[in-house]
Amino acid sequence: MSIVVSALKEEQPHEKRVAIDPDVTKRLIKAGMKVLIEKGAGVASYYNDDSYQQAGAEVVDRKTALSQANIVAVINLPSDETLNALKPGQVILGLLSSLIKPEKMQQLADKKVTALSFELLPRTISRAQTMDVLSSQSSVAGYKAALVASDAYSKYFPMMITAAGTVKPAKVLVLGTGVAGLQAIGTAKRLGAIISGYDVRPASKGEVESLGANFLTSSVSNGAGSGGYARALTPEETAAQQKELAGFIADNDVIITTAQVPGHKPPLMVTQESVDNAKPGTVFVDLAASDLGGNIAGSKPDETVTTPNQATIIGGNNFASELSNSASQLFAKNVQSVINAMVDKDGNLAIDPKDDVFSGLTATTNGEIINARLRDALKLDPLPKDEPAKDESDEKADQSAKSKGAE
Amino acid sequence: MSIVVSALKEEQPHEKRVAIDPDVTKRLIKAGMKVLIEKGAGVASYYNDDSYQQAGAEVVDRKTALSQANIVAVINLPSDETLNALKPGQVILGLLSSLIKPEKMQQLADKKVTALSFELLPRTISRAQTMDVLSSQSSVAGYKAALVASDAYSKYFPMMITAAGTVKPAKVLVLGTGVAGLQAIGTAKRLGAIISGYDVRPASKGEVESLGANFLTSSVSNGAGSGGYARALTPEETAAQQKELAGFIADNDVIITTAQVPGHKPPLMVTQESVDNAKPGTVFVDLAASDLGGNIAGSKPDETVTTPNQATIIGGNNFASELSNSASQLFAKNVQSVINAMVDKDGNLAIDPKDDVFSGLTATTNGEIINARLRDALKLDPLPKDEPAKDESDEKADQSAKSKGAE
Repeated sequence: MSIVVSALKEEQPHEKRVAIDPDVTKRLIKAGMKVLIEKGAGVASYYNDDSYQQAGAEVVDRKTALSQANIVAVINLPSDETLNALKPGQVILGLLSSLIKPEKMQQLADKKVTALSFELLPRTISRAQTMDVLSSQSSVAGYKAALVASDAYSKYFPMMITAAGTVKPAKVLVLGTGVAGLQAIGTAKRLGAIISGYDVRPASKGEVESLGANFLTSSVSNGAGSGGYARALTPEETAAQQKELAGFIADNDVIITTAQVPGHKPPLMVTQESVDNAKPGTVFVDLAASDLGGNIAGSKPDETVTTPNQATIIGGNNFASELSNSASQLFAKNVQSVINAMVDKDGNLAIDPKDDVFSGLTATTNGEIINARLRDALKLDPLPKDEPAKDESDEKADQSAKSKGAE
Repeated sequence: MSIVVSALKEEQPHEKRVAIDPDVTKRLIKAGMKVLIEKGAGVASYYNDDSYQQAGAEVVDRKTALSQANIVAVINLPSDETLNALKPGQVILGLLSSLIKPEKMQQLADKKVTALSFELLPRTISRAQTMDVLSSQSSVAGYKAALVASDAYSKYFPMMITAAGTVKPAKVLVLGTGVAGLQAIGTAKRLGAIISGYDVRPASKGEVESLGANFLTSSVSNGAGSGGYARALTPEETAAQQKELAGFIADNDVIITTAQVPGHKPPLMVTQESVDNAKPGTVFVDLAASDLGGNIAGSKPDETVTTPNQATIIGGNNFASELSNSASQLFAKNVQSVINAMVDKDGNLAIDPKDDVFSGLTATTNGEIINARLRDALKLDPLPKDEPAKDESDEKADQSAKSKGAE
C-alpha cells in the first residue's frame, strides 16, 4: 500500500542528471515508500544501478517505472511518448518547462495527471527553500561557470609570485548576481582572481561585497522586480546600461554573465561592439545562452566560439548537468522535500491546492490548471477564489485511491 | 652593433607558448639589444604582432629571424631544417631535449653553434633560480592539472552547505610533491578540497603541510636523490610502494600524479589494479604521461580515457602550454635572466664555460660538447679539468666577433 516513487532515465542527449540519488532513495524508503529506478538512470551521474539496489530501490525497465508509480520524478519535461503513458491520478514532478510549454500542462490536465513544475515554485516562501531546484541548480551552474572560465583562460587566476617574476591576478566581472552569479563570484574568488559583481538590483551590494568582490550597479535605474528577480528593463534603459557596461567589460579579462528575467528573452548585456573591442585572450561565459539569444552577442548554447579578435565566448546552456553528481544530489533533496510535503501522516498522497507552496508549484491537478500564471499564459479565466475546499477534498480522495490502486 | 635576439614561432602543432613576450622584449631593448620576432610567434599566447612592435621589436619572417640573430630563443628543440639554418657562433637557447636527443647536440657542436639547454641547468645553484624553466613551467602545469581535474570531476571540490543539504568536499591525492605537485595542492586547496600529498622524499613534509594538506610518505625507503629530485626506486621498492599507494588511491576521489625522475621512464605509481578498483567518477590526471608511459596505468599523453568502471584518466603531456600566456611570460623571464648573465658590460656575448651555471647549462660551445652529463650520454671522454682558460678566451673572441658580424 506504500506510495511508489519512480525516477526515469532522462531523454535529452546532453542531460547527465538524475532526479533521485541513492541517498534520497534510502530516505524515501525509510519514510515508508517504495522506489523504482529506471535501469541506467543514474549512470551519467556516476550512480550505478548497484548503488540504488544497495539503497533499497528496485531497478526496473521504463514501462514498469511509469506504470507502477504514484509519483514520477524527472529532471526535464519528458517526451510526448512518456507523457502519454501517464495515467489519471499519477503525479509528475520536475522542471517541466510549464511556462515555456503551457500546452503540455493542458495535455496533462486533460489526462487528469497532477503536474508539479519547479519553475512555478513560489521561491520567496521560506518553506519552499528546501524545494528550490532553480536555486540549487543555478548554484551548481555558477560554480561550473567559474571553473570553465578559469580553464579557458590563458593566464593564472591568482597572483603568482615566482623566482621568475610576478604574474598579476585575473580580473573577473560577473554580470547578474543572483544565485548563479554569487556562486561564480565565490568560486573565482577562491581561485584568487580580482572580482567585480554587477547587478541592477542595488540590494545585491551586501551579498557581493561579503564575498570579497567589488560591487558595480547601474546608474540607470533600480531594476529590482518581483520575487527577488530583476525586472525587464525598457529599451532606453537597456541601451544606457549596455553603454555603461562596455567600460566595465573592456577593463576585465573574464566576463561571466548570468542575467535572466523569468518569462522573457535574456537581456543582451554584452553588445557586439563590446565583444569586438575585447582584448585578445578575453574569456566570456554566457550562462543565459539559449536558442532565443543570451546575455552576450554571438554566444551559442553549448558551443565555444573564437572571435576574430581572439576572444573566446562559451555558451553554457546546461552547466548544472556537467557537475552531474552534485547537481543530482541536490535536485534529489529538493524532490524529497516536495514529496515529504505532499504525503500525509498516514502515508497517503495529499496535495493541498490551497497551501501557498502547492498553489504555486502545482501546474495542474484533478483535471484543472490551477497555477494562476499558467492560467494566464493559457488565456484561461482565473479560478474562483472561494471553492478550493471542494477541489481539495476531491483531489485527496482521488489521489489516495490512486495510490492504493497503483500498489 | 647591438646583440640581436630572435624568437621563433614554435613548430609543434600543440605548442602554444612563445619564448619571448612583449615585456621581456622591452627589457632586452632597454639593455641595448635588438629583438626580432617571427611573424605570428605569439598569437597562440595572445601576444599579437602589434604588441611586439609596440614593445620595440621588429616582426620578421623566419629566415630573417634566423639569419640575423646572435641568440635564438625557442621553447622546444626546432626541426632539423631550422637547426641546419643555424650558423657557427650563433647561440640557441630553449628546452632542447638535450638528454633525450644528445645526437642533436653533437650536430650543433659540429656546426660550432652554442646550445644552451634548460634541462641541463644546475637548478640547486641559487643564481640559477631565475633561469629555471623546468620550475616555472612545472608550476604552471601543476596549476592547470588541478583546474582540469576540478572541471572533469562530477562533484563540487568545496564543501557546500545549501538549503537542500550539505555536499561533502572532494578528496584529492597528489602523488609527487615537487614544484608541479605543490602547485596542484595549492590550487585544489584554494578550491576547497581536502588534500593529501604523497612523496618518497620525507623532506617534502613541511612544504606539503604548509599548504594545509595532509602529508603521506612511503614506509618503503627514503627516495631522495641528487639535486632535490627523487631517485629511481628498485623493482622491489616499486612493488611495495604500489601496494601501499593502492590504499591511498581507493580512499580518494581525484588523483593527480607528477612523479618524474630525470633521465628515466616515469615510475608507475597507479597500477592497473588500482585503476580497476577506483570508484565510478574517480578522476586521474597524469602529468607524467608520455609515449614511454606515465605514472598511471593506461594514461595516454594529451588524451582522456574513460575506463569500464567509469573512472576518467587524463594524460597531461604539455599542460604548461595550455596556460600559454602566463607560461610564456615566465619562460621569457627565464630567457631574459640567462641572456643577462651571458652578456658582458660592453654588450658583447661572453659565456664563461667555467661559471658553475653555464658549465651545466651549456650543451655545446666552440665546437665541443662541454656538459659532463651529455658527454657521458654521448660516450665521450670527460674534458680535462685544467684547460678551460684557453677555451674561454677563444670562445669570447669568437662570440664577440660573431656578434659584430651579425649586426
